[in-house]
Amino acid sequence: MSSWNPSQYSSISAHLTLSDISQVQTTESHETPILGLTSDAREKGYDGVCLPLTTDAWKKRWTNMCLVPSSSGDERKKRESRRESKLMSRDATAEKKAEVWRAKPVFEADEVTMTRLDEAEGSTAIISEWLELDTDDDWIRFDAEIALQQELSYASYLNIQTAILPAPRNRQYATCYARVVNACLQSSPFMNLAIRLPVYDPNIAQDPLSPTSSLSGRSLLSSPTIQRSSSLGSSLPSTPRLVVSQSLQSTSHPKTLEEHIDASWETWDLIRSLCDYNPRLSLALDLTPPLPNSPGVLGKWSAEAVRYIFLPASTFIANAKGYPVLPKPTQIFIRDSMAHRPNIILSGVSSGIHAKGTEAAYSQYIRHLERTSPVVQAAEKSGTVENFAQGYQDYLQAPLQPLMDNLQSITYQTFEQDPVKYKNYEEVIATFSGFSVVCVAGAGRGPLVARCLSAIQRSNREAFIYAVEKNPNAFVTLQGRQRNEWKDKVQLLFGDMRMIELPEQVDILVSELLGSFGDNELSPECLDGAMRLLKPDGISIPSSYTAHLAPLSSSKLYNEARSTKDDKNLEIPYVVMFQAVNLLSGNGGGPSGQCGPQIQECWEFEHPRKETVLNSQGLPLTNSHNSRFAKLRFHIPHAGVLHGLAGYFEAVLYRNIGLSIHPHRKDQISKDMLSWFPLFFPFKEPLYLPSNSELQVSIWRLTNQRQVWYEWHAESFLYGLGSDIGPTSNPSTPPIPMSNAGVPVTASPLIDAVDIAPERRTSVVLDPFSTRRALIKIGHTSLHNAGGRSSWIGL
Amino acid sequence: MSSWNPSQYSSISAHLTLSDISQVQTTESHETPILGLTSDAREKGYDGVCLPLTTDAWKKRWTNMCLVPSSSGDERKKRESRRESKLMSRDATAEKKAEVWRAKPVFEADEVTMTRLDEAEGSTAIISEWLELDTDDDWIRFDAEIALQQELSYASYLNIQTAILPAPRNRQYATCYARVVNACLQSSPFMNLAIRLPVYDPNIAQDPLSPTSSLSGRSLLSSPTIQRSSSLGSSLPSTPRLVVSQSLQSTSHPKTLEEHIDASWETWDLIRSLCDYNPRLSLALDLTPPLPNSPGVLGKWSAEAVRYIFLPASTFIANAKGYPVLPKPTQIFIRDSMAHRPNIILSGVSSGIHAKGTEAAYSQYIRHLERTSPVVQAAEKSGTVENFAQGYQDYLQAPLQPLMDNLQSITYQTFEQDPVKYKNYEEVIATFSGFSVVCVAGAGRGPLVARCLSAIQRSNREAFIYAVEKNPNAFVTLQGRQRNEWKDKVQLLFGDMRMIELPEQVDILVSELLGSFGDNELSPECLDGAMRLLKPDGISIPSSYTAHLAPLSSSKLYNEARSTKDDKNLEIPYVVMFQAVNLLSGNGGGPSGQCGPQIQECWEFEHPRKETVLNSQGLPLTNSHNSRFAKLRFHIPHAGVLHGLAGYFEAVLYRNIGLSIHPHRKDQISKDMLSWFPLFFPFKEPLYLPSNSELQVSIWRLTNQRQVWYEWHAESFLYGLGSDIGPTSNPSTPPIPMSNAGVPVTASPLIDAVDIAPERRTSVVLDPFSTRRALIKIGHTSLHNAGGRSSWIGL
Repeated sequence: MSSWNPSQYSSISAHLTLSDISQVQTTESHETPILGLTSDAREKGYDGVCLPLTTDAWKKRWTNMCLVPSSSGDERKKRESRRESKLMSRDATAEKKAEVWRAKPVFEADEVTMTRLDEAEGSTAIISEWLELDTDDDWIRFDAEIALQQELSYASYLNIQTAILPAPRNRQYATCYARVVNACLQSSPFMNLAIRLPVYDPNIAQDPLSPTSSLSGRSLLSSPTIQRSSSLGSSLPSTPRLVVSQSLQSTSHPKTLEEHIDASWETWDLIRSLCDYNPRLSLALDLTPPLPNSPGVLGKWSAEAVRYIFLPASTFIANAKGYPVLPKPTQIFIRDSMAHRPNIILSGVSSGIHAKGTEAAYSQYIRHLERTSPVVQAAEKSGTVENFAQGYQDYLQAPLQPLMDNLQSITYQTFEQDPVKYKNYEEVIATFSGFSVVCVAGAGRGPLVARCLSAIQRSNREAFIYAVEKNPNAFVTLQGRQRNEWKDKVQLLFGDMRMIELPEQVDILVSELLGSFGDNELSPECLDGAMRLLKPDGISIPSSYTAHLAPLSSSKLYNEARSTKDDKNLEIPYVVMFQAVNLLSGNGGGPSGQCGPQIQECWEFEHPRKETVLNSQGLPLTNSHNSRFAKLRFHIPHAGVLHGLAGYFEAVLYRNIGLSIHPHRKDQISKDMLSWFPLFFPFKEPLYLPSNSELQVSIWRLTNQRQVWYEWHAESFLYGLGSDIGPTSNPSTPPIPMSNAGVPVTASPLIDAVDIAPERRTSVVLDPFSTRRALIKIGHTSLHNAGGRSSWIGL
Repeated sequence: MSSWNPSQYSSISAHLTLSDISQVQTTESHETPILGLTSDAREKGYDGVCLPLTTDAWKKRWTNMCLVPSSSGDERKKRESRRESKLMSRDATAEKKAEVWRAKPVFEADEVTMTRLDEAEGSTAIISEWLELDTDDDWIRFDAEIALQQELSYASYLNIQTAILPAPRNRQYATCYARVVNACLQSSPFMNLAIRLPVYDPNIAQDPLSPTSSLSGRSLLSSPTIQRSSSLGSSLPSTPRLVVSQSLQSTSHPKTLEEHIDASWETWDLIRSLCDYNPRLSLALDLTPPLPNSPGVLGKWSAEAVRYIFLPASTFIANAKGYPVLPKPTQIFIRDSMAHRPNIILSGVSSGIHAKGTEAAYSQYIRHLERTSPVVQAAEKSGTVENFAQGYQDYLQAPLQPLMDNLQSITYQTFEQDPVKYKNYEEVIATFSGFSVVCVAGAGRGPLVARCLSAIQRSNREAFIYAVEKNPNAFVTLQGRQRNEWKDKVQLLFGDMRMIELPEQVDILVSELLGSFGDNELSPECLDGAMRLLKPDGISIPSSYTAHLAPLSSSKLYNEARSTKDDKNLEIPYVVMFQAVNLLSGNGGGPSGQCGPQIQECWEFEHPRKETVLNSQGLPLTNSHNSRFAKLRFHIPHAGVLHGLAGYFEAVLYRNIGLSIHPHRKDQISKDMLSWFPLFFPFKEPLYLPSNSELQVSIWRLTNQRQVWYEWHAESFLYGLGSDIGPTSNPSTPPIPMSNAGVPVTASPLIDAVDIAPERRTSVVLDPFSTRRALIKIGHTSLHNAGGRSSWIGL
């Protein structure tokens, strides 16, 4: 929308129909009906309009040229060789006209709704929705493609920014639909295309076994006469139907609503994959069908480019007072969508189908949902991560390398704003007694030193602090604070904690060297070198930390990571504040009963570690003890595309006080902590994961004498009777930490029970039959960050 | 092998063991035992030797350093945290030694078999086969990796060309094995690595349900004491076993031998995929297990880089006279392998286990198999395609573009050598009577003109020939032939057949504009333009042609196509004489009963075509009638990786005389025709296809006013109870040409029945349960040649 208002989270457009256009009177102030209607919409507060590009005249001409006249049912057989029948059953004049048109496709003036630049300004064009881009008739499909290209070329001429394409209807020919869309993206290099897609096909879902329900839409295609003219000109284009054809032999169970939603998404996935994730391709999600009461299944749309939401007046219900409101699941969906700043297309809102429904009531209600959206409220409230992260959503940052680089003062300042992290450190120190010497290893600009002093003071103790820092610039700041604030309570030492000598061993070693994945800023290596400084019974804060992973889908992050065309960019993990991201894993054990929870622990580091072989300086001979490997098994309840892995950490500072960015536990352990966004491990090639499949992720933390790096890889499996090639747990192998059916493992000592939304639990279906079937390998990714070529942190 | 003899198809190496080395006496002429042994092997006619790199001394030191002492069974539980137990249960001295070794891995002199360059020359090194690169113990695995790197580094120092790695044993940790191999390929940039892989695990296959059979190998790993020392020093390294662990809950059917072979291949696929198809990575296929009697399942190895074949004396059986021969299936496999010029490693051949088995008998027998190999015989016999194609196997050629480019005389000459094509043309002409004017459209250097004249003469008829050619250079040759040979029987016309005018319309239009895929050199477009020249009841030779496709696997072609690092190279089809290629499709209908045969027809072109709308010059207004689309459904009986599509054509010259490169029909229609190799449509990314899956291929022939191009795409499906998202045939849609269960469609008018090898038929298993299950989408490729960007032939 050209009239986008940046202060709002959503924009709202009015949907205009051919009937609206034909009814409007031209006035002195507006030279054309369209100008009158758009001006009217603006006055009513809409941000834009959305209207058909072509008229009935075009439909009539195209139909006469390109479609065989209506044929009776028994003639279907004769049409087996369509090419022949096409030419047999129509007159040469029509075919001649069609050939002339194919050679030079051009509109006549009355075949389009808009002809002027000012009419098109701020308008989104709806392409002729009767074009059958996925009919099974090759010749109609080829002609529909020519017509589509003609319409887009004309829209482009009028400087229209976005065109909404007719919905795909026929999964059997979805590759044809997708190929045409891709061709259009190539031939209209400045145009944005949105695919209209009903969130599912309501008719099929209501009665999945009735042949008429699944075929009534199809019959349009087998008899190519257009029978849908009544839909054109109505307040909203009739809901297009995705025909999921049923096999004749199929005696499988009726589809659930979830499976229908998966089927809609699967069609979208095919289209955008064939278009190679073109950023000019987006979704116009049609919310005409009532949404299910389990928002979990809708989560997948948050990872997709839903730029438009179609919302007809008929989707609204009347509240007690007769005003139009949305059903609860739709409310929740719209509120959550606000994060992605959608353009909401309201249609039929002037038809007065609700008692108190003046036209303004609908858009006022949308604005109400926007204001009460948890996403919007969190973003507006200061002190939240969402507010802190404004502008950083889905933005890829290379992780800090504080060991290799000396951080800037501004970086320290940003992290010192954290309201939770330092408070938790102070609380931990305050719980100790009987200590007299503390070392802050990696003092930075001094926040941990200050918190240690404050904890000591609060508990009326006496203790001395050594503050070690290797950044010469930060050391200047430290010297200032010592002179002005800390005086003789603190001794500063300039140098690397792995080399420096202290006058004495200390009781407590305090450090904050953690990255988003726990160990990814080399905390284990640094603390290995600092353990010399600790008394034999001394304590490290943090005392341990764990790394956690979950498989994610996000076309946005996938496109961001590959945007620089350098494969190296898909070989390193990034720090990202996730937004257009969907975790693909479920919380259950999966059909095998052997999958872990949605987010799984990879490994742990503990400090101090006692078992390492040390040299005479008290340093480990090699770093091999800091190698790690994890193989994780995730259940994938709903079909999705794997684009990467989400990495999180959780640290135990001491006993029950910690830091966590684990999505299920962070609010209980360190709510509103700002210092860490999650880590994103990208995959070069998207991996398609079917519903109810299993994903096995291998991840390594590798090291040589100079470097530390990660490598990661994933394999996908389905359950079937075919063969049991896939790896399954071996009786002699200690099992990978896993859950009993549906109950996730909670290894954290910081927490009693796990916070799982109820709908997550219900989404896991344990099929008693499928548990007896073996795993069949169905795909894998490349190995990432292979061979340490792009090792990323110098030791 | 450095001593490769290029005149032979295979090379044969002797396998030397530690015991061989310890038994040999040094003599004056040979300073070291190894030099004595290699000299002896050369005298016996071997092309090289293959021997272990390290000794028992190394094994002993490594074991003492890196493995926990043997622990009794009940101690297993205590080892849950291995890291801890590892350090608890062993003395600090061993760990200290290990750390020193890890920091600087170095051999002692008695730990390696070879120390001199002359010892290593012509030798292939076998890496310590007791290294457990895929044990479930992280710490043993990490140490095994260090040891492997150390051995490869040492082998590299000795200028050894190829090292054979221990076989993968544990599918559960196959990603770990693969990652290590990849790391080694990076760190040893000049070394070739071969993975030893038994064609299947014979023990498991014999008794799939016995836990001891599937776990006896595994128990080595759970108790890290090495119990296999007896195998080292024996005549052949004990057959490594691929442990396919069985799920505890699994009640699936016992695996068939085919499934075990699939499982072995699946492990290899994982390894080479993780290594990104590195050309320095190959297979040493271990034929110790007896091969099955259905060679079809072994076909997949022909598409893989099998550079070595392990063949122990124990695999040989005694013939009636007591001489060692191979069982029939192994004979067939070895004979077929000759195409790939393998290095065959004979082992234990001096142990005298066959009555008449002098050592020479074994290699003489291999040479006998080589001489009697059908591949070798075909290549040696002149007049065969195999002989003609020497040096062109798996070599990618851009298809000719005779319409856009003027061919060279040498190109014409090559194709004029074809002993079949012109004969068939002549036969066709000879069958006609009652014609008086012929036009040869695209006369080239004149072979078709000569054949027409010869046919006319043979049948004592009178007819006049117009010869049209647009290549000005070939036209010079034509003028010479007319003056010297044809005189007034022929009139030459210089120009494009789409524009040229003839003095009269002709009875027969003869052309040869076919490409490997039929229409891919624009025969339809050229003949459309030439149909003006034909009388209303005139005849075109060819009268029709069809394009055919099959999905193929070939790591070689995949690597060739992407070798130039330009993605454009994966967007065009190539002409290739297939060799290291395996067709993935089966001949049956698949579990759905709706799949077509192994090779399926895409579309047809017929000439003359009558229904086109023509302009006043008799030319079609647009080329849209030459657009085509096909959606093909293939059953994939055995797991494989899709790398591309094989394209073939079949042409009907007239009635029952034709030309065909369709693999199942060419020998009946046009045996020994040389002019066309198949077409290869590459895919950018390999697509993994599980056993018993379905592949749906979409292919388009697209056209605009200037260009013709193909686009292609594939989707993969499995059958399952999960959901029926996948497209299945719609009752209202005329079905895609398909077979009744297992019987392929034969649409060719040229042939009565289809030639299918019997084993192909047996490889299709129709599961009565699975036919009732729906298709589940599991993956797809990108769209190739998208948007006409790389359209390849100018009109």
